[in-house]
Amino acid sequence: MSRPPGRKQENHKISRDLFVLTYGALVAQLCKDYERDEDVNSCLDRMGYSIGIRLIDDFLAHSDVKKCRSYSETADVIAQVAFKMYLGVTPSVSCCSAAGNEFSLILDKNPLVDFVEELPAERASLCYCNLLCGVIRGALEMVQLAAEVTFLQDRLRGDAVTEIGITFLRKAEDRKHKRK
Amino acid sequence: MSRPPGRKQENHKISRDLFVLTYGALVAQLCKDYERDEDVNSCLDRMGYSIGIRLIDDFLAHSDVKKCRSYSETADVIAQVAFKMYLGVTPSVSCCSAAGNEFSLILDKNPLVDFVEELPAERASLCYCNLLCGVIRGALEMVQLAAEVTFLQDRLRGDAVTEIGITFLRKAEDRKHKRK
Repeated sequence: MSRPPGRKQENHKISRDLFVLTYGALVAQLCKDYERDEDVNSCLDRMGYSIGIRLIDDFLAHSDVKKCRSYSETADVIAQVAFKMYLGVTPSVSCCSAAGNEFSLILDKNPLVDFVEELPAERASLCYCNLLCGVIRGALEMVQLAAEVTFLQDRLRGDAVTEIGITFLRKAEDRKHKRK
Repeated sequence: MSRPPGRKQENHKISRDLFVLTYGALVAQLCKDYERDEDVNSCLDRMGYSIGIRLIDDFLAHSDVKKCRSYSETADVIAQVAFKMYLGVTPSVSCCSAAGNEFSLILDKNPLVDFVEELPAERASLCYCNLLCGVIRGALEMVQLAAEVTFLQDRLRGDAVTEIGITFLRKAEDRKHKRK
């Protein structure tokens, strides 16, 4: 049975701003709860991880993504399909290591900070969007890809761009060989 | 100058599940922070209010809604335009008072609880979605409409339906007369 193209996805679409503002409320609450930025950052990462391991099902169900055959393809899917689907933006991707397992996602525009003017002086080490790193890490883990995901640069903290670094930790081929 | 119909809104559209899961993380965090359900509920309401007073600008900019001329029209706009825009669902609306200032929004489907199986026994009085009440209250206040907004029924708490009650507190006409 066929369904009208894009129909299922269409039903899932919502306006972004309620999400962005709700995310802001979450970060503000964590800043009340934890004095140290590091604790807020790791709490956001942990929350994101729990979200990522559940969100991957939604992603696979509502995107037409097939199995990726390389880290590079995976990084492209994260940027061009996942970011588009969940945040409505498409970061640019570049590979940053000769080994081909380190990638940078550069966000020209980060909608998650739409309503944030600047970080307060006492919150200079806050990774405001750290939830995203956890989400990516959790989602990748569910497709058997271990990765480290961190903010390398952040406009909110005065950097020129916002950059998320993804380092894939093991080669799929390595795992295949091990299994044999 | 004209813009392609729906273009601006399209750019703002995102998948719903990341929002729903992030909201879940927010509620879980508040449940860690506050022992009493009432405190979680009022915190969610306060957060929602702060969101609503900011979200109204986005709503007016991205919907084609004109000024409402009655409470009934306002309630319809909340259900048919705002809920559709921000949660992707359309509650049914009924007027519940002879005075014409009390309305019920009945949600057959509440996407905010998509990932919630049931409330834990010790959280029986939690209004899981109470943020929504605050959002509606805050947004209405910004268009000079004072209202009380509360969950009257909630499937998560075992009710047959999920029902949000909106009581408009003053008639627009009253205010007009006072101003003269």
